[in-house]
Amino acid sequence: MPAYKYPLLIKQLLLTPSVRTPNKEIVYRDLVRFDYRTLFERINRLGSSLEKLGVKQGDTVAVVDYDSHRYLESFFAIPMLGAVLHTVNWRLPPEQMLYTMNHAGDKIVLVHSDFLPVLESFGDKLTTVEKFILLTDDNKKPDTKLNIEVEYEEMLRAGSASYDFPDFDEDTQASIFYTTGTEGAPKGVYFTHRQIVLHTLGIGMVGTLHNCPRFVFSEEVYMPLTPMFHVHAWGNPYLATLLGMKQVYSGKYDIPMLLKLIKEEGVTYTHCVPTILDILLLGAEMEGGDLSKLKAAVGGAALPGGVAQRALKAGVQFFGAYGLSETCPAVAVCDLKEDMLDWDIDRKGSVLKRPGLPVPLAQIEVMDTSGNKLPHDGKSTGEVVCRTPWLTEGYFKEPERSEELWRDGWLHTGDIGYIDEGGYLYLTDRIKDVVKSGGEWISSLKLEDLVSEHEAVAEAGVVAMPDERWGERPMAVVVPKPEYKDKISPDDIKKFLQKFVDDGTISKWAVPDRIEFVAQLPHTVVGKVDKKVLRKQYQ
Amino acid sequence: MPAYKYPLLIKQLLLTPSVRTPNKEIVYRDLVRFDYRTLFERINRLGSSLEKLGVKQGDTVAVVDYDSHRYLESFFAIPMLGAVLHTVNWRLPPEQMLYTMNHAGDKIVLVHSDFLPVLESFGDKLTTVEKFILLTDDNKKPDTKLNIEVEYEEMLRAGSASYDFPDFDEDTQASIFYTTGTEGAPKGVYFTHRQIVLHTLGIGMVGTLHNCPRFVFSEEVYMPLTPMFHVHAWGNPYLATLLGMKQVYSGKYDIPMLLKLIKEEGVTYTHCVPTILDILLLGAEMEGGDLSKLKAAVGGAALPGGVAQRALKAGVQFFGAYGLSETCPAVAVCDLKEDMLDWDIDRKGSVLKRPGLPVPLAQIEVMDTSGNKLPHDGKSTGEVVCRTPWLTEGYFKEPERSEELWRDGWLHTGDIGYIDEGGYLYLTDRIKDVVKSGGEWISSLKLEDLVSEHEAVAEAGVVAMPDERWGERPMAVVVPKPEYKDKISPDDIKKFLQKFVDDGTISKWAVPDRIEFVAQLPHTVVGKVDKKVLRKQYQ
Repeated sequence: MPAYKYPLLIKQLLLTPSVRTPNKEIVYRDLVRFDYRTLFERINRLGSSLEKLGVKQGDTVAVVDYDSHRYLESFFAIPMLGAVLHTVNWRLPPEQMLYTMNHAGDKIVLVHSDFLPVLESFGDKLTTVEKFILLTDDNKKPDTKLNIEVEYEEMLRAGSASYDFPDFDEDTQASIFYTTGTEGAPKGVYFTHRQIVLHTLGIGMVGTLHNCPRFVFSEEVYMPLTPMFHVHAWGNPYLATLLGMKQVYSGKYDIPMLLKLIKEEGVTYTHCVPTILDILLLGAEMEGGDLSKLKAAVGGAALPGGVAQRALKAGVQFFGAYGLSETCPAVAVCDLKEDMLDWDIDRKGSVLKRPGLPVPLAQIEVMDTSGNKLPHDGKSTGEVVCRTPWLTEGYFKEPERSEELWRDGWLHTGDIGYIDEGGYLYLTDRIKDVVKSGGEWISSLKLEDLVSEHEAVAEAGVVAMPDERWGERPMAVVVPKPEYKDKISPDDIKKFLQKFVDDGTISKWAVPDRIEFVAQLPHTVVGKVDKKVLRKQYQ
Repeated sequence: MPAYKYPLLIKQLLLTPSVRTPNKEIVYRDLVRFDYRTLFERINRLGSSLEKLGVKQGDTVAVVDYDSHRYLESFFAIPMLGAVLHTVNWRLPPEQMLYTMNHAGDKIVLVHSDFLPVLESFGDKLTTVEKFILLTDDNKKPDTKLNIEVEYEEMLRAGSASYDFPDFDEDTQASIFYTTGTEGAPKGVYFTHRQIVLHTLGIGMVGTLHNCPRFVFSEEVYMPLTPMFHVHAWGNPYLATLLGMKQVYSGKYDIPMLLKLIKEEGVTYTHCVPTILDILLLGAEMEGGDLSKLKAAVGGAALPGGVAQRALKAGVQFFGAYGLSETCPAVAVCDLKEDMLDWDIDRKGSVLKRPGLPVPLAQIEVMDTSGNKLPHDGKSTGEVVCRTPWLTEGYFKEPERSEELWRDGWLHTGDIGYIDEGGYLYLTDRIKDVVKSGGEWISSLKLEDLVSEHEAVAEAGVVAMPDERWGERPMAVVVPKPEYKDKISPDDIKKFLQKFVDDGTISKWAVPDRIEFVAQLPHTVVGKVDKKVLRKQYQ
């Protein structure tokens, strides 16, 4: 057939803004500002320069930078060459950062001057890198032992403004980055051109579902508040570019600068984890900043009620979103159904902070331990699994962990939750915090909450203990309040929990068989009960 | 790899409405009304019933019906089985309709009782059909010689409400229908699951581009006014279903019924050719109907200024759209750029009636006769060519015409036009109306307009005449007004045209060498100058 077989490639995301919005701006801090026409030209210059430096299809090119216009250019030019964009997480401990760069096989590294010292410290343990390209904000040549090939702007000036990026198979790998769990080495997840294009269309389609003011359009001014090294800044720079939004990149996160950019550039759309929203609100509250024009997709963790209240008060239009590094990341985005549109703001807020409803083309289910899909009844709890056209095929060079991720042909998120009759997803636990007892899943977090309600309890930790008959059984380790020391027994706690069994809050299987009292619990560095240590102590 | 390889299949378009909008309605005339939950069930029943009747992957199932809820069910269930949906154009002359059914190889035919007589008349010339399924609005058994297998509703009642449609390759053919040109047999164009899914996302994305009230959302009430047999009703039933719109199907087009449905069901979104918009406006003007809540995509031909004015006056929010049967069909949709949003309504209207800007992922170019892309300068005129992920791979079983369609890896639309600096497409001619003279393309329609401006001219026809040196040269055949008979010469006309050469309206090559005067011109049945006859007379 002579017909052109149109592959889904990242370069095609540039077609629409090149026609519709060539004059929109890209802004970097208070330092750089240019229009989309210049962006396209700079992408061409970057692509042609990297090719001249020897980058071939399949090569991996790493970026170690803050959120920047250069990062945006790399999001496009590197995969558009057929090369792999490695977005390096520089927040990792240095030895893990080094591990990811070697594991990904980085060949060329674009590095901001702030990160030269950490790369220097790797010395010859960095085994695959051939060339470093310097990114600077101040045009100064830094003093470094690294062998810098060229400075970024100098390189772009020598590149071609009208480079012709090739066509290739849409299943070509476009990106890689690493996700860290509680155990083991960081795991590389990777995405193809097809996946990134379909993810962009999928999250874009959310915008067409309802005629709500809170969805995103070309007229928005976008600024990411999840770093670009993290799951392509949730894929939003690709969507923002396709839609032709004005885009603002803030460099190193710094609250006064963020508030200044929001105000002066008129930022209206962002995405972040609850902690960042909290800090932003705090900053605005202290400095009298105005966030009332801001829409924010919030994900990564549950939005605490207090933060949600303050966000509503500040006029921030937040909405929940759900996904993992493994899922590109959007699987669910929260929006209101038509019959909720005239609800009052607090009631709407209680819906909008949920993880949400499946993005178009996404399928979300909860599964029991035997791989059966559970009903969407607002209570049947299991592991959240999903299928979309944009999920990582596995962990890079980790066949066993990939098999585990993709059991039964569904991507296993490791999150525990349920789906209500309206299709909204709710998350209750991470799977590692769940006690699997005789086919029932018991939430350790919920048990901890309930045990803590007893007047004698200062703190409680619940962990799974191996059990011959039931597989696992919950065990509670309890710190009594000083005044109750030696005045409380395991049976008191069990009797207390029985009330919650009677009113249906928990099943009778959830009451721990074993309850121990201790003077204090082990904690992780961020102050959570350290379950790993606890399990070891009692096994 | 154990990862689920997610193919893009039509069944996935049902995922979103099944979660978000199960209570929305599907309406058929003033006869039938049910919710999406019932729609999904009926699609399952239709799929399982057709399988029981022996439909296998790759089989072709034809539908001969007006716009209906049954047609919508067929849009999904037939391709979801892996079978091919043939949407039969019953407006064709009977012998052409017969040709398409034999050429497509229809195996099962779903036929509305109104079309039994024409199918009966085919007798045993209908060579591939094995079974007929009857569609009726009145539940009466019609008197027919055709061997009816089963009535549709009866068949659905016996089907399974929870049928599980299979996965298969996304490049599986989903549909076929026929397009007629001026010459030769109808040509079959066909689309795959991948193409239809991507077309749905592509036109859906238009809705996210701007925060304009005129774009389409879940809250719209949709009713097609281009028939469902024609390019899947421009693909809109797939988008309307994905977005969960209330959908209204009107059966046999009939102005009072259409106006009644618009009023009583609250229709807000439709698409049509200018003629239908004209008739609708006329109906509303006569009967005092209210069209002020209606948005309409208008395509298929240029929207005449008078109709546009009346539409603006009636409050119809129209916008141009461009495509062909071969293109699924949307290639361009017209919308305003941000700097036009505060223009007055007439000026906006003058933009919105254009064919528009490329849909996301679509590439549109104009090419000269040597296959060079022409600049987007608002004047360089050539053939409109395009690439999108949803173009037919060719004409069914017509390798030569397919090669012709796909010269140089671009789909050749046969339309002549230009693109302005803002990316807006303008159409000037069909390629068959163009005189190709020494590498220049001369518009016969424009020449006819200019010649007609001469005070002595009643009517003029311009055709291409073969020319040894230039390939073709324009020739004008002129009917003088009675009072100018024998008082006007070819040189008068040439002198008159010279003014338009001088002011740059036309090139000097456009002035016809040969001008003939006649008493009358041959006309086609619709009243246009019959160029085919004219060419034969003078060759």
